[in-house]
Amino acid sequence: MLHGGDYNPDQWLDRPDILADDIKLMKLSHTNTFSVGIFAWSALEPEEGVYNFEWLDEIFENIYKNGGRIILATPSGARPAWLSQKYPEVLRVNASRMKQLHGGRHNHCFSSEVYREKTQNINRLLAERYGNHPGLIMWHISNEYSGECHCDQCQHAFRHWLKQKYDHDLKALNDAWWTNFWSHTYSDWSQVESPSPIGENAVHGLNLDWRRFVTDQTISFFENEIVPLKEMTPNIPITTNFMADTFDLIPFQALDYSKFAKHLDVISWDAYPAWHNDWESTADLAMKVGFINDLYRSLKQQPFLLMESTPSGVNWHDVNKTKRPGMHLLSSMQMLAHGSDSILYFQWRKSRGSSEKFHGAVVDHDNSSENRVFKEVAKVGETLEKLSEVVGTNRTSDVAILYDWENNWAINDAQGFGMKTKRYPQTLQQHYRTFWEKDISVDVITKEQDFAAYKLLIVPMLYLVSEETISRLKAFVASGGTLVMTYISGIVNEHDLTYMGGWHKDLQEIFGMKPVETDTLFPNDKNFVTFRNGTYELKDYATVIESNTANIEGVYQDDFYANTPAITSHQYESGKSYYIGARLDDQFHQDFYSELIKDLSLEPVFPVTHGKGVSVQVRQAPEHDYIFVMNFTEEKQQVSFETKVTDMVTGEDLTGEITLDKYEVRIVEKSTN
Amino acid sequence: MLHGGDYNPDQWLDRPDILADDIKLMKLSHTNTFSVGIFAWSALEPEEGVYNFEWLDEIFENIYKNGGRIILATPSGARPAWLSQKYPEVLRVNASRMKQLHGGRHNHCFSSEVYREKTQNINRLLAERYGNHPGLIMWHISNEYSGECHCDQCQHAFRHWLKQKYDHDLKALNDAWWTNFWSHTYSDWSQVESPSPIGENAVHGLNLDWRRFVTDQTISFFENEIVPLKEMTPNIPITTNFMADTFDLIPFQALDYSKFAKHLDVISWDAYPAWHNDWESTADLAMKVGFINDLYRSLKQQPFLLMESTPSGVNWHDVNKTKRPGMHLLSSMQMLAHGSDSILYFQWRKSRGSSEKFHGAVVDHDNSSENRVFKEVAKVGETLEKLSEVVGTNRTSDVAILYDWENNWAINDAQGFGMKTKRYPQTLQQHYRTFWEKDISVDVITKEQDFAAYKLLIVPMLYLVSEETISRLKAFVASGGTLVMTYISGIVNEHDLTYMGGWHKDLQEIFGMKPVETDTLFPNDKNFVTFRNGTYELKDYATVIESNTANIEGVYQDDFYANTPAITSHQYESGKSYYIGARLDDQFHQDFYSELIKDLSLEPVFPVTHGKGVSVQVRQAPEHDYIFVMNFTEEKQQVSFETKVTDMVTGEDLTGEITLDKYEVRIVEKSTN
Amino acid sequence: MLHGGDYNPDQWLDRPDILADDIKLMKLSHTNTFSVGIFAWSALEPEEGVYNFEWLDEIFENIYKNGGRIILATPSGARPAWLSQKYPEVLRVNASRMKQLHGGRHNHCFSSEVYREKTQNINRLLAERYGNHPGLIMWHISNEYSGECHCDQCQHAFRHWLKQKYDHDLKALNDAWWTNFWSHTYSDWSQVESPSPIGENAVHGLNLDWRRFVTDQTISFFENEIVPLKEMTPNIPITTNFMADTFDLIPFQALDYSKFAKHLDVISWDAYPAWHNDWESTADLAMKVGFINDLYRSLKQQPFLLMESTPSGVNWHDVNKTKRPGMHLLSSMQMLAHGSDSILYFQWRKSRGSSEKFHGAVVDHDNSSENRVFKEVAKVGETLEKLSEVVGTNRTSDVAILYDWENNWAINDAQGFGMKTKRYPQTLQQHYRTFWEKDISVDVITKEQDFAAYKLLIVPMLYLVSEETISRLKAFVASGGTLVMTYISGIVNEHDLTYMGGWHKDLQEIFGMKPVETDTLFPNDKNFVTFRNGTYELKDYATVIESNTANIEGVYQDDFYANTPAITSHQYESGKSYYIGARLDDQFHQDFYSELIKDLSLEPVFPVTHGKGVSVQVRQAPEHDYIFVMNFTEEKQQVSFETKVTDMVTGEDLTGEITLDKYEVRIVEKSTN
Ligand SMILES: [Zn+2]
Ligand SMILES: [Zn+2]
Ligand SMILES: [Zn+2]
Repeated sequence: MLHGGDYNPDQWLDRPDILADDIKLMKLSHTNTFSVGIFAWSALEPEEGVYNFEWLDEIFENIYKNGGRIILATPSGARPAWLSQKYPEVLRVNASRMKQLHGGRHNHCFSSEVYREKTQNINRLLAERYGNHPGLIMWHISNEYSGECHCDQCQHAFRHWLKQKYDHDLKALNDAWWTNFWSHTYSDWSQVESPSPIGENAVHGLNLDWRRFVTDQTISFFENEIVPLKEMTPNIPITTNFMADTFDLIPFQALDYSKFAKHLDVISWDAYPAWHNDWESTADLAMKVGFINDLYRSLKQQPFLLMESTPSGVNWHDVNKTKRPGMHLLSSMQMLAHGSDSILYFQWRKSRGSSEKFHGAVVDHDNSSENRVFKEVAKVGETLEKLSEVVGTNRTSDVAILYDWENNWAINDAQGFGMKTKRYPQTLQQHYRTFWEKDISVDVITKEQDFAAYKLLIVPMLYLVSEETISRLKAFVASGGTLVMTYISGIVNEHDLTYMGGWHKDLQEIFGMKPVETDTLFPNDKNFVTFRNGTYELKDYATVIESNTANIEGVYQDDFYANTPAITSHQYESGKSYYIGARLDDQFHQDFYSELIKDLSLEPVFPVTHGKGVSVQVRQAPEHDYIFVMNFTEEKQQVSFETKVTDMVTGEDLTGEITLDKYEVRIVEKSTN
Repeated sequence: MLHGGDYNPDQWLDRPDILADDIKLMKLSHTNTFSVGIFAWSALEPEEGVYNFEWLDEIFENIYKNGGRIILATPSGARPAWLSQKYPEVLRVNASRMKQLHGGRHNHCFSSEVYREKTQNINRLLAERYGNHPGLIMWHISNEYSGECHCDQCQHAFRHWLKQKYDHDLKALNDAWWTNFWSHTYSDWSQVESPSPIGENAVHGLNLDWRRFVTDQTISFFENEIVPLKEMTPNIPITTNFMADTFDLIPFQALDYSKFAKHLDVISWDAYPAWHNDWESTADLAMKVGFINDLYRSLKQQPFLLMESTPSGVNWHDVNKTKRPGMHLLSSMQMLAHGSDSILYFQWRKSRGSSEKFHGAVVDHDNSSENRVFKEVAKVGETLEKLSEVVGTNRTSDVAILYDWENNWAINDAQGFGMKTKRYPQTLQQHYRTFWEKDISVDVITKEQDFAAYKLLIVPMLYLVSEETISRLKAFVASGGTLVMTYISGIVNEHDLTYMGGWHKDLQEIFGMKPVETDTLFPNDKNFVTFRNGTYELKDYATVIESNTANIEGVYQDDFYANTPAITSHQYESGKSYYIGARLDDQFHQDFYSELIKDLSLEPVFPVTHGKGVSVQVRQAPEHDYIFVMNFTEEKQQVSFETKVTDMVTGEDLTGEITLDKYEVRIVEKSTN
Repeated sequence: MLHGGDYNPDQWLDRPDILADDIKLMKLSHTNTFSVGIFAWSALEPEEGVYNFEWLDEIFENIYKNGGRIILATPSGARPAWLSQKYPEVLRVNASRMKQLHGGRHNHCFSSEVYREKTQNINRLLAERYGNHPGLIMWHISNEYSGECHCDQCQHAFRHWLKQKYDHDLKALNDAWWTNFWSHTYSDWSQVESPSPIGENAVHGLNLDWRRFVTDQTISFFENEIVPLKEMTPNIPITTNFMADTFDLIPFQALDYSKFAKHLDVISWDAYPAWHNDWESTADLAMKVGFINDLYRSLKQQPFLLMESTPSGVNWHDVNKTKRPGMHLLSSMQMLAHGSDSILYFQWRKSRGSSEKFHGAVVDHDNSSENRVFKEVAKVGETLEKLSEVVGTNRTSDVAILYDWENNWAINDAQGFGMKTKRYPQTLQQHYRTFWEKDISVDVITKEQDFAAYKLLIVPMLYLVSEETISRLKAFVASGGTLVMTYISGIVNEHDLTYMGGWHKDLQEIFGMKPVETDTLFPNDKNFVTFRNGTYELKDYATVIESNTANIEGVYQDDFYANTPAITSHQYESGKSYYIGARLDDQFHQDFYSELIKDLSLEPVFPVTHGKGVSVQVRQAPEHDYIFVMNFTEEKQQVSFETKVTDMVTGEDLTGEITLDKYEVRIVEKSTN
């Protein structure tokens, strides 16, 4: 199990005493893995063509001799000043077409041939020098890829990308983007410009293709970076660190990670939940952490790495509160529980200056192993040493929720409905919640993944959906699957062009009904849906439904569609479908899915009785289950094991009722044969 | 009565099936008039000098054969990409002096000779080809003129405009703009630059003249557009579509429509009230709709056209809620009631792609005549067919409220008072409200219109007022009129230069008092005015008054001006004047104006007894009154007719008490001789 | 005592009647001093090299003959249009690298050689012409220096400044700015650019040095301006008008006035408190006025001038409320009480046009001496005539609070803690409050001033502190001083580099403890500190403390650091120190400092018993105390003099209890020998 994190000795080359302390403190903190070289370009190549690897040689040696391993980063995330100065084409141009000055990070032109050449060159030198070092276990390509460039090189690349996509047929592009609207027809490829606040920004097809291009061009840049690594170190796995968007920890929106994931050997990501905040309970936030981990795990259906996290607090939230005692162990174990094979930190040591000097770290400015944070890190290290069996294990799920990056882009870009109430990713979290509360494993999958593996597939707010996906949904239900869909689904195809002639026939067949109006409500509007024995408040959206062969499961209470269907179900061939017409409250989702869980005999990952705020997650080995029992509340909680299990940390056998302290976590093992 | 709207067949030229459906659906929806060609430039001239009119020929033929008529738009609202590419001078430069890229719409340089030539050329071709077509009933010039350009051509045009205005006397400009302040004296015309966030923006005289120039230059562009139309189709009336500013539906502020109106044959406008919102009652919003219609009707003292409206919802509000059943008929009839001779929609059919695909339309993506919206449109159509007598009728009013665009610009630009509490147009709505509630017809006039036609003239917050207007107000009162003025009136002249030596002598004569201080209050400050038997809360503004010969009608209750005059009245020659020193609550306005209505024997348009939220409006033919009785509440309402009337839709005779359902409207006829 | 203000006859040269009225009104208003020439450049030099001084000659003569005196301004605050047009290099470039257009004011490039030459030239001509005029009493250099320029000239000047500072050693700069972080190492001086939103903005060392450079370059510009004045009029004192930042009246943040003050003969400043607002009591605001005056007085430890104030309201607040009757006298006397030797206004007369025409003035647009404001000004004038003895007197304090501009920059720039809750200056006000309420004189000093002069030194939130300052603090305590320090102190050195190895040893010695964690709280988090007999709520920040030899004075009530030290005290050699670990409420500060006041026998400036909201301040002459007793409440207040004093305005003797009306002020005299 990897434990450690981002290590920046290049900031301390003048301080051999500090570098020596690092080695000692690494041991004391039970860490074993360090990501080095992120942002080290200036230290490696202080002037063009002048290299200085000696310091890094020493770091490799010292860590390795100390029992540690290294994840080596390529330094493209921030370039030296001499590079920007000599080759200004590497500087980004923003959407307002202002060329940026040198500074910051993550801000190169992703099309620049010069930058691609320079990064490949330094990467090649790193691979040559360290590729065979026994301490090297992984490549960390660049850092938190993000952003976009609108320079002439990128305009050219975008047009080239479009020509490929539309097969050099400009009319095909005009049709896909519906450019007859507002006289926007292009009569020449050279007229196409990336979206801009000072130009075009309301052509949704253009916006959507631009976002696709940004993802593809970022991957293209990444692929260029790894050429020498693949060539020279074919056995060293490659990752890059993914992100989430704050504060709801929704999937990072700027890049389509479902595409990017295919180019990585291992998914890794940087998780910074705002624990102990004042707007949600600890359990609410833990549920969101579960959701995004289940997505990043499902992307490749394999364990991932936690590449960055903080043992205390961050420095870039509005309020940078530190983790309370116990939270660091608990939150770290949650990552493992959902599929991580590492606990890595940003950062090993707080820097003395510049903007991240107050970001949480294993080693504080006091350079001490005696403070609370250091001790909590060491405790995580000791715990991880008991959990090596867990490495590489995965889990299976009967339930899948579909998340689609392109749908998120399109729905947010849509002019219509409520401008601030789309909240597609948050809606998925709402659907995820009941399963998380009931310890039922969920995969959060993309539209390309296999649906047949699941009993239950949930596709909320699938605004953008291709004919092909509709067919696959139909096949899924036809062959016995259960499908749940909601309001604002099936509206446009992959070009953001609406389906014509009413709701898609296949969808009508699956659901036995059709939506005829989507009502959008003001925040203070009040309406309710009665469903079975309950009454549930609706907000934001209500679909007026014309039922055909569907069963009416719930009806609206008020407004001009009072007593008309709000929720329907339908038997389609061997399967069943549900359509939820309105955005309903949490209680509805709990009641609705509880029934479905019963109907479909969905089982928790492990039979543990517990109260609200406790989460149980599992990692499955061929003959063992590793079960994480986590108390995400500020109170003691009673949990009751139905069968005997063994505590992996203490070695003791557990059965019946035990008490979890505030924030306590128990990791137990159960033989499965 | 025109019924129909914006029709964009140019988006569907690949889909003859859709174009054929349109013709059938037009019939079914009882529509008869279609605005075509808005944004069709790329379809008409796909490459420079290459024209394609065949599709439009067919549209003309098909609509005409189907019994419909056409309002033909000039396409200058959005230009083809080739035009921007070949002639970049047509692209706007914003106030920060950033040249815009191609994209969007309504964004040409209004001074560009090239663009003027190109638009005149395409307009000429349209006039040549369709000018004599029997289906053509009107020209729709461009679309929603708005915005401004700061390019070099426009700077040049602005300086030219200033030289004309100031008779080539730079000192006159310096004096008018008070440029000695902050050493801003111009020593050469070439130093004058339009206002800019990166340059000068605090010289109010400059800002005011710039806004005047923007209006004049927009009109100049419009006049250039219509040259060939006036020449070839002298009998086809010309309009362009005006707008309102959201959400209070205040008059569109960027252009002085009182000037623009003189250049149009018919006023038309685009009305998008946010019905069923959650911050005001339906009646509150209906009052605002009444106010702006009464302004646009009064601009030419003749019926106008509703050029755009939605049968359901829009796509650009924060929350795009659709009209509840019945609201479409009710809100359409309200437009007629205040002077419209049409109900036209944006848009006939929802497009498949781009940013307006979710804007309400007669025909939805389902292409069906069976949905609720389509049926409500057809019902409006059937109703309109009963109301053809109403076309061309107008009405007269005894009450006028003065709205002045220049005053609105100047008062909003004023540094002083409360920065966010000026709210000049909303203050006028507050004064309008009582008359609307009492069914008393009001004209909302401009400073150039004849005051003598009215018994009562209300001029709230007339901050900017010329000597000439003061004289005309004086003459109005002297010859028997009743004048109401408020706080923050009579402060500056037409150059935004303050009157010196105290309040203008003429105003002092009219009112028998003078304001000596304007107190500006914080939101939580509390004070009251006692007036007759009531006590009313004041907000934002309180004028300290020195009364001379005026009667003190109300006094302040608190603060250092407690017990001093807050409201005064004064007999001046044959007329009477009232000065309201403080911004008082709605109840005050109701009590104050109710008394005045009694004093001046102002009569409702028709004697109908009804409760709150019902509005009665009239259109007057030489021998008939057409009376609209409208229930703007969510409850049933009893209304009582004192005389017998005939329902124009059902043909039945009505007298005594009848019940109006929620949102119900009755249109009745009464012989007037 | 100077009474008068900014006078702009250059706006009225066409109106000799107005200029004549001015002279009469000056007499009537009991004013005697006028600042002329601010923004008069266009009037003095209408074209390059063409001068017009005649009007100013006349103004000098007329004022002087009328008994008045003149503060002559240099006109660099706004330049003529011809100057910007001919020499565009004088125009500023903003941080986004956009060159500004001509317009506004206070917007020259402070590095431009041309502008320096032009301003020195006009200053020289002014000095030649008026330097010996008997009416001239002071130079007013430019106006409200502020802002910054990022043009190439300024980049060059910045690099030059850095080379001087770092002794041409680029590595020293790299080390100081910790540029190894994010690969930001400079390999050539030419790579350094000023901070920019489109470039680098997160390198705190760069930001800090840039702010220092901006102060130094502003002073350099100022020094260039005064060369001819120092040369020709060595006996005329020089000032420039300082500012405060709204609305809390915190010290102006953009320039380090502690440096600037050294270059002035007299401090003067422009005070615009928002009296009678709706978010704080009059006394709360008066306390803030006291605080900033005590800072500006302490900068040179001598009386200062109130250069601008308003007799009524301003025009640039959100709500521009006017002073209530009596407030003008009260607020003016408060300025004197804290050390001002003048009451000067912006502005003598309201202009007719442009953006400041509604800013309060002695003479309103009515040109009358009969309105309320004019009469209140005249009353202040009459009062001041009784207070000439006060001129030049100062006072001594036993208590000092340390304010540091650099610390304010650094703490606000810090990424970490709470982004919106730093509030360093407001925290100082909180510490100041108790002394103000108890009439104990406080100096607000800078880090360079002598600490030994005080019994009690308070240094809240001293985030940035050099080794040298730490030594001086240590020496202060060692030799018997009492020192109070708080949370977030002693974190970084003068380069914004953190201290390593834990809290500075000297600080640990002084305080007998060390902070080990700074907890940052969310707004709704709740925690309390118990201290002696009280319990006090904490907000935002709580320091976890490891006490060594310190006494634990208060402990936390809750959270993981419950029952650990929150407040400590410590005897260090002859002195004592207190550390306050949490941001506590006002009550705590009152209780804490009340005890300290008792312990240290700190005495009020004069023994007067009074209730809350009354402030007593003193000016001390060798043999007399001049005591200001001010009622900052809306109620009558009883105050009781223990000894006999003489009212300086009425001449009556006062003893025992007297009643102060709402806003009443009494200025009394007491012989001190
Ligand atoms: Zn690029
Ligand atoms: Zn232009
Ligand atoms: Zn400069």
